Amino acid sequence: MIFKDSKFTINNRKSFCRLINLAADLKVMSNKPSIPKGTRDFSPIEMARRNYIFDTIKTVYKKYGFQQIETPAMENLSTLVGTGGNESDSLIFKILPRGEKLNKLVKEINNVRGDLSEENFNPIISDHLSTFSKHTEQALRYDLTVPFARYVVQNQNDITFPFRRFQIQPVWRADKPQKGRYREFYQCDADIIGSDSLLNEVDLIKIIDDVFSELFQGKLNYTVSINNRKILQGIVESVGETDKFEQIVVAIDKFDKIGLQGVYNELAKIGLSQNSAFKVLKLMISKDTYDEVRVNYPNKTDLELAPEVLNVLSQDIANTINGQKGIEELEFVFKKIKILGVKTANIIFDATLARGLGYYTGTIIEVKIDNFPSITGGGRYDDLTGKFGLKNVSGVGISFGADRIYDVLFDNDLYPEFKGDSTQVLFINFGKEEQDYCLPLLFQLREAGINSEIYPSAAKMKKQMTFANNKGIKYVVLVGSNEMESGKLTVKNMENGEQKNLTINELINLVQK
Amino acid sequence: MIFKDSKFTINNRKSFCRLINLAADLKVMSNKPSIPKGTRDFSPIEMARRNYIFDTIKTVYKKYGFQQIETPAMENLSTLVGTGGNESDSLIFKILPRGEKLNKLVKEINNVRGDLSEENFNPIISDHLSTFSKHTEQALRYDLTVPFARYVVQNQNDITFPFRRFQIQPVWRADKPQKGRYREFYQCDADIIGSDSLLNEVDLIKIIDDVFSELFQGKLNYTVSINNRKILQGIVESVGETDKFEQIVVAIDKFDKIGLQGVYNELAKIGLSQNSAFKVLKLMISKDTYDEVRVNYPNKTDLELAPEVLNVLSQDIANTINGQKGIEELEFVFKKIKILGVKTANIIFDATLARGLGYYTGTIIEVKIDNFPSITGGGRYDDLTGKFGLKNVSGVGISFGADRIYDVLFDNDLYPEFKGDSTQVLFINFGKEEQDYCLPLLFQLREAGINSEIYPSAAKMKKQMTFANNKGIKYVVLVGSNEMESGKLTVKNMENGEQKNLTINELINLVQK
Repeated sequence: MIFKDSKFTINNRKSFCRLINLAADLKVMSNKPSIPKGTRDFSPIEMARRNYIFDTIKTVYKKYGFQQIETPAMENLSTLVGTGGNESDSLIFKILPRGEKLNKLVKEINNVRGDLSEENFNPIISDHLSTFSKHTEQALRYDLTVPFARYVVQNQNDITFPFRRFQIQPVWRADKPQKGRYREFYQCDADIIGSDSLLNEVDLIKIIDDVFSELFQGKLNYTVSINNRKILQGIVESVGETDKFEQIVVAIDKFDKIGLQGVYNELAKIGLSQNSAFKVLKLMISKDTYDEVRVNYPNKTDLELAPEVLNVLSQDIANTINGQKGIEELEFVFKKIKILGVKTANIIFDATLARGLGYYTGTIIEVKIDNFPSITGGGRYDDLTGKFGLKNVSGVGISFGADRIYDVLFDNDLYPEFKGDSTQVLFINFGKEEQDYCLPLLFQLREAGINSEIYPSAAKMKKQMTFANNKGIKYVVLVGSNEMESGKLTVKNMENGEQKNLTINELINLVQK
Repeated sequence: MIFKDSKFTINNRKSFCRLINLAADLKVMSNKPSIPKGTRDFSPIEMARRNYIFDTIKTVYKKYGFQQIETPAMENLSTLVGTGGNESDSLIFKILPRGEKLNKLVKEINNVRGDLSEENFNPIISDHLSTFSKHTEQALRYDLTVPFARYVVQNQNDITFPFRRFQIQPVWRADKPQKGRYREFYQCDADIIGSDSLLNEVDLIKIIDDVFSELFQGKLNYTVSINNRKILQGIVESVGETDKFEQIVVAIDKFDKIGLQGVYNELAKIGLSQNSAFKVLKLMISKDTYDEVRVNYPNKTDLELAPEVLNVLSQDIANTINGQKGIEELEFVFKKIKILGVKTANIIFDATLARGLGYYTGTIIEVKIDNFPSITGGGRYDDLTGKFGLKNVSGVGISFGADRIYDVLFDNDLYPEFKGDSTQVLFINFGKEEQDYCLPLLFQLREAGINSEIYPSAAKMKKQMTFANNKGIKYVVLVGSNEMESGKLTVKNMENGEQKNLTINELINLVQK
């Protein structure tokens, strides 16, 4: 409308740009439907890529004896609140069940507006508050670990421990949406619950190696950093600052961002003496220790050097109970992985790794590629089910971040061709008679397991060929009077333009090979 | 506690029952975690069964050229409301995004309670109401059709029409939970949008035949009832009662429940003359027409007789515009299906079938087995995307009810054995030395694609064997000093108790065959 009425003349580049911007504004203003901020639709090609990631992870999980479960999107609010810390609580999407109840509430509040006097307000608003709180008794899960803990306790009599479960489902977080951070996203979790054996850690690290060797095809470097909460405790204990554990670890965790001097300043601010601060820094900056150790073994990998690095560390913290235990645990894991070998992972001991200290009590694992946020993480937690009344059950798990892995594969052009996932053969529709001739042939292809279609109406040839092109269909079958007479179909390969005359069985063989 | 304190003596059946009831009450009272009413957890075996259903449907959908998409669990409330009728609106689960905003709101309401006077109440409560309504701007989808329509309009420039999409995702309804009806359940939808060709209907009916032939293996009878809204319109028009269309159809739809006399009474109540009521009944009760026609063709199936039945009907309604069109459309569909043949479906024309009249404008499809609610349904809708600003786009689709199909397969014992889906081989753990010997062998199996585990600690033999049994593991590998010396593993088949001495390669061959 505006375009018609206003008299734009495109006489220079500037006016043209203004016109383009106006058109863009108009498009935004038009009443096109949209989806909530931070959520996404997935188109067919995006689904194919996502399914490729999920299937790869699933196949590896199964190879290691993990079994799939699913839990409902909604949990009781009491299950979710208070498990992941205050930060998690504020990220929970709460649900107002039973739309009719909500409508009633709104109607009641509206009624109140009319006849309100001071003396009758308090009881009324108090009623509403209690209705209100009843309404928010359910919420969407924000991770898969808490629902899993709830599942384990609820079904403990039917579960054989140690229980290896995997779970691939979406989670929801009322987070500020930004690049790479969504309000709805998938997690791919594997946990072993009911066993404190460190062989479980070995399996999880090997799983990481298997999955990324498959997905990255050796074309992308990634680092699996491993630490143990007890190492962190040992370091802090060794300088006698146990009560400042959290503050010290938070400071050290910033090493990548603020550097050595920055961390030192933070430690000083916390109140550590120069001596203690230096000692903590020396112990935690395992990269430096790696450099020292590497002098003696110039050709060894990070994984191979890990026991030596741990050995250096142990001279200082082995006299603390936690330190000694942490060293032992990590040594076991690194030695086993070293013997079993890895395919492509760069496995490294990193004493500064401090993720998930709110719940991890032993091993801590994180996977990163350069210049990108963590793509996988995990660790051991000693009392996840305690909240639900089942004490002293140790668990360990990892979680692949499907959405970030999606982006990494996309940015690095690492997706395979998805052959045969979409339609492989299209019959062009030339009219009633030809259509009737083609229909039984079409179903012969489908019976042979070949994904195929007939264009549903006798549209213009060009339109039908464009359809085949856009949908990425490899073979187009053309049947006119000649073909109906001879029984030989004209088959066009859309990738190289080749045309052949084939019987239906020859066509089946061609597509299946 | 109560058991200890109270002095129950179980001296007769009645006391015993009372005790059992008390125990049940106590169990409910104990603080075991639970999930929201109407939702479910899925255990590993349940997941295997569900995946079997989903995979079967997916494979068939792909064979017919359908491509998968996914949409977010949450949609804007404006997308969902007013599309499925008032009934659907009241079933919508609304979401309170951003937990912190909600907390603020509750806090504010609490503050108001203190200093409230008549004059300042109105603006304050009005503020809260507007905050409140902003909070409920999002909701969980209650079906997959509305989000699909929204998707099509939003992405219309990137979609090649006719667009064949399938979508397998959960939906949520704030329904009263009851047997077979859940608040969270999966739908498996396929729709073709942007084509009014009846070949699409033919494909959808053939898909139903393919899916249930596979799932039921010919061991369960099921009926695919087909109708067309235009037939219903033609019948009503033929007695000149167009303005009573909905009332008449609602009455006829009750035929299965209230019988002929019941429907007649209802029609009389609506105000139809005896003559008109008889005519409507005669036309709609196509089962009677089937019986009449069958006299001449005693050996024909319902599908083969459908054109004859339509022919009888056409004598009375072909003079109405809708009736004629409806007869033509159904004849096309039945004739094509008849030529192409079906595997196991009993396909029948049923003029009383009246589901989804709020949105279906042409073909109506429903699949039932005896004594069970509908397990699949679908139809054609001429203006689903109109609400979102894209007019005159015809679509047709079906939806498999995964949860009901699950129950049908379970009740009729129709699930296959899920071989190789779970762990196939377990290494018994006899201690450190044996464990270290087994670890590389375990990884050889995994590299060969065999799902396998080692018990993570040297627990008692019985415990480990029970673990293998409970998890349904077929082969157990026992390695002690003899085996380590000889290099031959003792392999026990848990299904028949057989024991063999095998090399690792022989074991791999045994499991893979």
